Amino acid sequence: MKLIKAYIRTFMADGVVNALKDLKIPRFSAIDVKTLGDEIHEDQLNISAELGSTYTKMVKIELICSDECVEKVKETILKNARTGYKGDGLIAVSPVDEAINIRTGKKETLSFA
Amino acid sequence: MKLIKAYIRTFMADGVVNALKDLKIPRFSAIDVKTLGDEIHEDQLNISAELGSTYTKMVKIELICSDECVEKVKETILKNARTGYKGDGLIAVSPVDEAINIRTGKKETLSFA
Amino acid sequence: MKLIKAYIRTFMADGVVNALKDLKIPRFSAIDVKTLGDEIHEDQLNISAELGSTYTKMVKIELICSDECVEKVKETILKNARTGYKGDGLIAVSPVDEAINIRTGKKETLSFA
Repeated sequence: MKLIKAYIRTFMADGVVNALKDLKIPRFSAIDVKTLGDEIHEDQLNISAELGSTYTKMVKIELICSDECVEKVKETILKNARTGYKGDGLIAVSPVDEAINIRTGKKETLSFA
Repeated sequence: MKLIKAYIRTFMADGVVNALKDLKIPRFSAIDVKTLGDEIHEDQLNISAELGSTYTKMVKIELICSDECVEKVKETILKNARTGYKGDGLIAVSPVDEAINIRTGKKETLSFA
Repeated sequence: MKLIKAYIRTFMADGVVNALKDLKIPRFSAIDVKTLGDEIHEDQLNISAELGSTYTKMVKIELICSDECVEKVKETILKNARTGYKGDGLIAVSPVDEAINIRTGKKETLSFA
């Protein structure tokens, strides 16, 4: 079982979200994040006094799925989040020990076709 | 040491937060997230132009604790976040290599009674 | 490869962010979080009806890097996020299986310096 985090451009988010929904993924989350660092495109900078820095708004997609589904999800995100220009973002895959459905109280496999 | 993430209903968040505080957990975080996917209850949908999709607002609880405390935390969240209806959310448990207290600079076990 | 999460004080965030940028870390994220629990400084409390609790606003820094870079990043955060008073926050280091650059579609090592 894996946690997939993808940091993507906000203006690519709708394409990624809808492609992930087409995979019939039961649920995933989107969170607005501020991305900092050298590789961010300079036309999309905001400034934050709190962070003392410029930043780019990005969307973080979080998704937990079975090991078998990881390739499919990665492929889908890569295909839909890519512009080919600097600042397209990053996908990270991390281990998850278990996932529990709160309604049923049972472990979930989070496999989908 | 484990990271527990729980994606819960916003209107159940106060019960979960207070039950977790009763466990004397030294600290944990709450983050507003947008949840997408098939299993979301249709009465709580919002729409986002950016994501090109409807979504449900949920609260993500993040909490780092020792291996021994995981069962207790899972139990507490399951008991307090459950309505029995579709969309109650998910708990995920992931491995953490180490946690460091910034004030002391020392490793923390994050065990609690 | 590791994921480093640091929950830090908002008013220390600019120091941490700029120190991390000095390390030439290609990219990292900042997210506003609500921190709950016993060890939070009482002068910085807000109240949330939704969470049914007081909370402290903190900034979560998320950063993925190679195993070799972890010590450097931890050191930098510890040095710049510390006031010595209760509520300085926490650093957690978790395993990451792989990181993929969306622009190139290739795995990244995320080593720097």
